[in-house]
Parts: sequence; C-alpha cells; structure tokens
Amino acid sequence: MSKVDSPEVAVRLAEIVGPGNVITGPDVPEDYAHDEALTGEPQLPRHVVRPGTVEEVSALLVAAGELGVPVTARGSGSGLSGAARPQPDGLVISFERMNAVLEIDTVNHVAVVQPGVTLSELDERTAEAGLSYTVYPGELSASVGGTVGSNAGGMRAIKYGVTRHNVLGLQAVLGTGEIIRTGGRTTKVSSGYDLTQLIIGSEGTLALATEVIVKLQPRLAHTATVLAPFTDLDQVLAAVPEIISSGLAPNILEYIDAFTMAAITYTAELTLGVPDDVREASQAYLVVGMENRDSERLHSDVETLGELLTGIGAADVYVLEGTSARKLIEAREKAFWTAKAAGADDVIDVVVPRSAMAAFLAKARELATEAESGVVGCGHAGDGNVHLAVFQKDPQRRATLLHDIFAVGMDLGGAISGEHGIGRAKKEHFLELEDPAKLDLLRRIKQTFDPAGILNPGVLL
Amino acid sequence: MSKVDSPEVAVRLAEIVGPGNVITGPDVPEDYAHDEALTGEPQLPRHVVRPGTVEEVSALLVAAGELGVPVTARGSGSGLSGAARPQPDGLVISFERMNAVLEIDTVNHVAVVQPGVTLSELDERTAEAGLSYTVYPGELSASVGGTVGSNAGGMRAIKYGVTRHNVLGLQAVLGTGEIIRTGGRTTKVSSGYDLTQLIIGSEGTLALATEVIVKLQPRLAHTATVLAPFTDLDQVLAAVPEIISSGLAPNILEYIDAFTMAAITYTAELTLGVPDDVREASQAYLVVGMENRDSERLHSDVETLGELLTGIGAADVYVLEGTSARKLIEAREKAFWTAKAAGADDVIDVVVPRSAMAAFLAKARELATEAESGVVGCGHAGDGNVHLAVFQKDPQRRATLLHDIFAVGMDLGGAISGEHGIGRAKKEHFLELEDPAKLDLLRRIKQTFDPAGILNPGVLL
Repeated sequence: MSKVDSPEVAVRLAEIVGPGNVITGPDVPEDYAHDEALTGEPQLPRHVVRPGTVEEVSALLVAAGELGVPVTARGSGSGLSGAARPQPDGLVISFERMNAVLEIDTVNHVAVVQPGVTLSELDERTAEAGLSYTVYPGELSASVGGTVGSNAGGMRAIKYGVTRHNVLGLQAVLGTGEIIRTGGRTTKVSSGYDLTQLIIGSEGTLALATEVIVKLQPRLAHTATVLAPFTDLDQVLAAVPEIISSGLAPNILEYIDAFTMAAITYTAELTLGVPDDVREASQAYLVVGMENRDSERLHSDVETLGELLTGIGAADVYVLEGTSARKLIEAREKAFWTAKAAGADDVIDVVVPRSAMAAFLAKARELATEAESGVVGCGHAGDGNVHLAVFQKDPQRRATLLHDIFAVGMDLGGAISGEHGIGRAKKEHFLELEDPAKLDLLRRIKQTFDPAGILNPGVLL
Repeated sequence: MSKVDSPEVAVRLAEIVGPGNVITGPDVPEDYAHDEALTGEPQLPRHVVRPGTVEEVSALLVAAGELGVPVTARGSGSGLSGAARPQPDGLVISFERMNAVLEIDTVNHVAVVQPGVTLSELDERTAEAGLSYTVYPGELSASVGGTVGSNAGGMRAIKYGVTRHNVLGLQAVLGTGEIIRTGGRTTKVSSGYDLTQLIIGSEGTLALATEVIVKLQPRLAHTATVLAPFTDLDQVLAAVPEIISSGLAPNILEYIDAFTMAAITYTAELTLGVPDDVREASQAYLVVGMENRDSERLHSDVETLGELLTGIGAADVYVLEGTSARKLIEAREKAFWTAKAAGADDVIDVVVPRSAMAAFLAKARELATEAESGVVGCGHAGDGNVHLAVFQKDPQRRATLLHDIFAVGMDLGGAISGEHGIGRAKKEHFLELEDPAKLDLLRRIKQTFDPAGILNPGVLL
C-alpha cells in the first residue's frame, strides 16, 4: 500500500512545506529516531517535515492518506512512552517551526500557543503578565503539543489538575486533513461531545493539535517548600489525606523514598540540612509545596502544616527557602535522569487511588524481590501517581514483572500510566490488561478521526 | 422497524426489571412527558421502566436494540434542554430507584454515587464528612446522572470548574448493552482516550451512566457574599478580570441586571438594604461569593475586595451575611423560575469569552429590539455564561431572534450553551450553526457507542 519509497513522496512533501523543510532518507538526524523512553530501539523515519501553518499540516495529512504513509507528530521529543518514535517507512511532522506564543490574554486568562512552544518559553511569557500555566511536568523543554498528546501531569496537579483540566480549546487536524476548532476561551461549554478532551491524551493517534488555548492562573508571589522525613513510608502515605482535608491547599505533595532521595541529592550536589541520625533512620520523605499571594499567610500556613506533620509522625520538619527549595524541586524533577544514569532499565508511572499507594508499593516491591529485580522511586503522593525505576536487565523477566505490577495497579482501581502515556513502550501491557470492550470502543473512535489509519499506527492501540 | 406496539415489548421489559417497575401506555404519568425546557410539546413515552441494577440497564438496552425502541434516560427531569423528553414510541429509563450514595471516601476525597442521587442528598452526605461536591447548578433537586448528561455548571464553576472537571470516573452502559468502567478515584490518568469526558455532556446519546465517581473538596467553614451595584453594566463586566487577577479566588462571580434583580428580590420577598437612590441609579449588580477556612482571612479578603470594587466604580459595596446572603444566592438560583413566572417564552445560556460579554449583551439587546422582543437576564460573569430570558410570543420570530443571538455568540468565540445543553430545544440552531465537519465527526462518534441509534434519537444530533 505504501508508496513511501517512490520519489513522488519527497516531491509532494516539498511542494507542501517548501524544499528547505523536508529531510529525507540518510539526511534525517538521529534525534528524530526516538523520544526519551528507556526501552525500544530508535527508528529513523523516511521523511521529516517542518510545516509552518495549519494549512500545511492539513495538506500533509491529505497527502499521507493518499500515499499510505504513517505519520508521527513530534514536539520536543522529551516524552517517555515512545509515542514519538516513528515507523521506518514513516513521516515525522515536527512542530519546531510552529512555536509562537500567539497571545497572552489577560482578560480571559488564557494563552493561545502553537504546539511547538516549550513549557519554559510559555512560563517566561506568562510570568511577564503575572500569570502562570500550572502544568509542570519534570521536563520544561517539553512542547505544549507534546503535553497535549500525553495529557502531561507533573507536581502541581494536586492543586491545579493535569493538562486535560487546563486546556480549554484546540485547533486540530484530523487524519482526513479536515481542520476543526474545539472549545474556546471559556471554561463552560455544553454544546456537543467534548472533542478537546478526546484529543488530549490520544498520543497523536486521533488528530494533530495545531493551536492550543490554555488556562492561566494568577502567579502567587510567595512560596515555601517543606521537607519532612519519616521512619516509615506508610506514615508518609497516611499523612496525605490529612494534609488535603486541612484545606491548606498545597501545590506540591510528593513522596521520595530514601534511596531516591540519596541519589537525587547526590546528583544535584544538594545538602538539605537533615542531620545524619535522622537521615539514617528515614525510610521516606514528604515534600510539600505551599504558595500564597500574602507572605504572612504563607508563614502561618507553613507553621500549621509543620504542626500537622509532626502530629502525624514526621521525624522533623524542615522549611526550605530560596535556592535550596528550588534545588530540591529541580532535583526531584530530574529523578528520571538520575534513574537513567543509575542504570535503570525502565521507568513506569502507575497511578492508583492514593488510599491504595501503600498496598501497591508493598506488592510491587514483593514482586520485584521475587523477580530478583529492583524498584525504587518517588511519586506524586497526592495523586497516587507512583514513579518507579525498574532494574532488571533481562527483557523477558522485566516484561513479566511489569505486567504483574501493572495488573496489581489496575486491580487496585488504577491505570498503567498516570501521565507518561502508553505509547509504544507500554502498549503490549495495555492491550493485555485493558477491558476488551473498551479497547474495541477505542479502536472504533480512532477510526472516526483517522479512517485511513495513518496517525501514529502502532502507538496505544 | 420498531416493534414498540407489540405486547412482547412490555412482557420483555417486565422480565428484566420486574412487573412492578414497568409502566405502559395510558398509565404513564404526565411528568415523564417533559423536563423543564420552556419550549416544545410534552410527549408521553410508550413505556417507563425503573431498573435497580446496572445489569438490568444493560439488559434493557440489549432489548431496546433488538426491538428498535428509542431510549431516553431520566434523572429528576429538571433539565432545561428537552433532552429528557422522550419519543412517542419510546422507552424512558428512569433512575429513580438507583439513588444510593454508595460511598463517601474521605481518603481519596471522592464520592461514589448512583445516577439517581440528587445534588441536595449528596450535599447532605458530604457535609457530614466536612467535604463538598462543588457543582451547584441552580436546581439542587437535579440528579447526578442528569448533571453528567448535561455537563452542568452553576455558580461555583468560577473556582471549581463544571461537572466535567469534577467527575473522575463512570460505570456506563453503551447502546450495545456493554458495561464499561472509565477513569477511577484518581485525577491523573493517561492510558487511552478519555471516555469519561466523552460521555459527560453527551445528553444520553452515547451511554447511560450507572455509577459516578465525583471529586470532593474540603468544605470551608466561613463564607461571605458581597453585593456591588454599578450604574453601568459594562463596568460590571470590566471588573471581572480585575477580581480574578487579584488572586482573591472568589467561588461566586455573578452579574444580575437591574430588571432581573428587581424581579428575583420581589419574588423572594428579599430586602438587600440598598438605598432607593442607589438602586434607581443602578443598571446592574455584581455578586461575589468568598470562602475561607479562616474567618479572619475571610474578613480581610472581603475588605480587599470592597476596596477593589470601589476603585473600579461600584456605587457602593454591601457585605451580606447569614440569612440575607443565603437568600440572595437562592433567589439568583431561582432566576429561571422567576423568568418562567414572568412569562418568558424561552431561556438561553450562551457562553462567550468573558472579554466578549459586553459586546455580546449589547448586540443581543439590539437584535431583540429590532425583533420587538425583550431579553433580560443575569449570568455567571466569571465564566462568560449569559442567561437570558427571551420574551417573544411568536415562535417564528423567536426562532429567528435566537438564531441571530446564537450566531453572534459563536462569532465571538462562544457556544450556544454553557451548561444547559443542546437537547431538543436548541438542536435546530446547533445543526445550522455548527461546523459541518465537526457535526459529521460527532455523528460518527455516536455510531461507535450506539450503532443501532437507540439512545435519545432526535437529541443533540
């Protein structure tokens, strides 16, 4: 079916985006062969194109449909699911040229951006207006388009929700080349099925977002980070609902196990001021971020939080300010890179109800021990989103272990991925463990957006 | 195709739900013939059934598919879109018996409820746990299932979002009778297309929710309501972004025009303490709700808000407490009933970006004047969601006026309905004004959930 090898393809692509924006065959740089997933072999695509407009994206999808060429969208390539790894006979549509912040709208409190804008660029632009886009996955070089594809989460989801709660509208191109607009600059819409939400998290398999309207929040001036070591991980997890019920509304609520804390602080050359005896007795840490528009209120809240943590069994409470606070959060954000450098063979981000985190972690460790493997990690404790680095060289044993861990998470009412996505890396597990009736429904939905099946085949489904 | 008249239908329904839970033909009470939409003739269905379990709902849909009987789901019947008005040869599935609060989960901060639970029942149960389900449309007799169908909003959306932002998971039955579970007790999920969000707001056309997991928030102990009259409606609307940027995080932000304020306070026998001269000079009012877990902070915030409002041009600022605050909010919630009693011929709830509210209202009034009609109203100013009572007896002139008003709203970047839904009442306008490519896509999606087309035909599409 595919005519990808015929010279007509490169010619047609060049007609659409201009010859300077097509790279073909051996000229394709290695970077386009992969994202940051730890598993799976890099795969160079046949062509890379860099469109500049939505009309070009539309024409590219029409051409791909006619020629039978599989299409993979790419933002910054910082994803962890393999969803940006192309097919060997495929076309990568890279959004690197569609990288404009089109508007910071301070009346409706939204930003309108192209998909290639990175989160750090958006953060800079919103800061100028005293506003903030609150989706902060660890990697701020991620593109907005990529975070839409994966429904990225991050630490601040405990207060502000994930990408799906902060994207109000899209311009997107279906697999057919049709251009649609969904949602808008409003929170409320009840006028037909929510296509915005359907496209978010669809990992490039339904439609390609060419413009994104994101919700902005007032940027609160005062922040503090509270670190509490506990002798027992279960105590950390039991503290979480207490903190949420208190109404203190933390914007970060993370746990870090002792092994991971040692690794990330060592890597970041970070000293937290925790005395040796406390550190040695600690099995895990809770990191709580607080913010307020008023500095006195912040201090009073931090005090209340400290009392609450001590009451729940924290060995001590450290209030980090300025540089050390920022460095700890950055070190936590870079936990993936630390795990990679330590030789982790995979990273996973199972999500379970937060009530089930202790049971999930106990069971995951038990399974790992049985499989002569290691799992260590940290996670978004408020959201039940557990990031585990998995150490097991043998691919077959690792696959079995992951399957068992995912099955435990799903049995506990959770899902395989809370924020990374399924992509290629976790697809086999997803297809094995998910309800077949739902998988059939997802396949039928895919068909309605992309009848020719050109959008990221082999990803998710 | 339909075998609805044959005796076998009633027999089969009785086999599924028991003879005591089937009402047929002339025995069907008039209440099942309509919801609260002001337009459209009531229509009695052929059968009403009251299932008690998800298995019964599934068996009912299988039977309806085989027999070709159109199915309309019904909660409390308090909707405003006509989505619960059945077909003459149709089956109403009433969820009145599936009305249990299954769990108030204080660790994950969710409630698990059956669709027939009303919002007031849920409010009572969550209050006992110090928690709150923050979706408060005007009508608290609404069922949770109905609010899922319409993606209900209400006043507190400015702080907490609408139904779609507060429902984490569903159990639902597809048109095929297949039972699926979507989402769960977690905020983060990135494992396949978001079926929860697709079903929310689908007005009974894709699947019937048989269990709903909703997010709960800490119930904050201290509240205040601030009322500010303005001589000019545009000033009211200009105040909105200032209040949001301030970070004061109001949980209510409403405008009420002078006509509507007079009507609702008269109906509620409510005295607000606004002196006659101020009242007479006022064209519109802003109502701002504030809440805090700490009473001192609340008072200080109310003071800051008062200064802000005066600075923006409020004629005065009144802080309402206790009974009068509650009564004003209740009167506002009952604005629909006041409009109905005043002889309004329709109510609409267009949503536009809040920056476009002034332009939208000016244009809507102009169109109404040209059509010798009246439009007055109030609305969720923070959300750009404008509720207008439309006075025009002639159906053809009214239809033309609504069409023109909806077209203006959509041109300004908005949608026909912010929270009521399209249903039957606004369907013709929706089909005329919406992008045909999107309508085609919605129809294809509908087909994937409901291949036999039995779920609420004639609604939305």
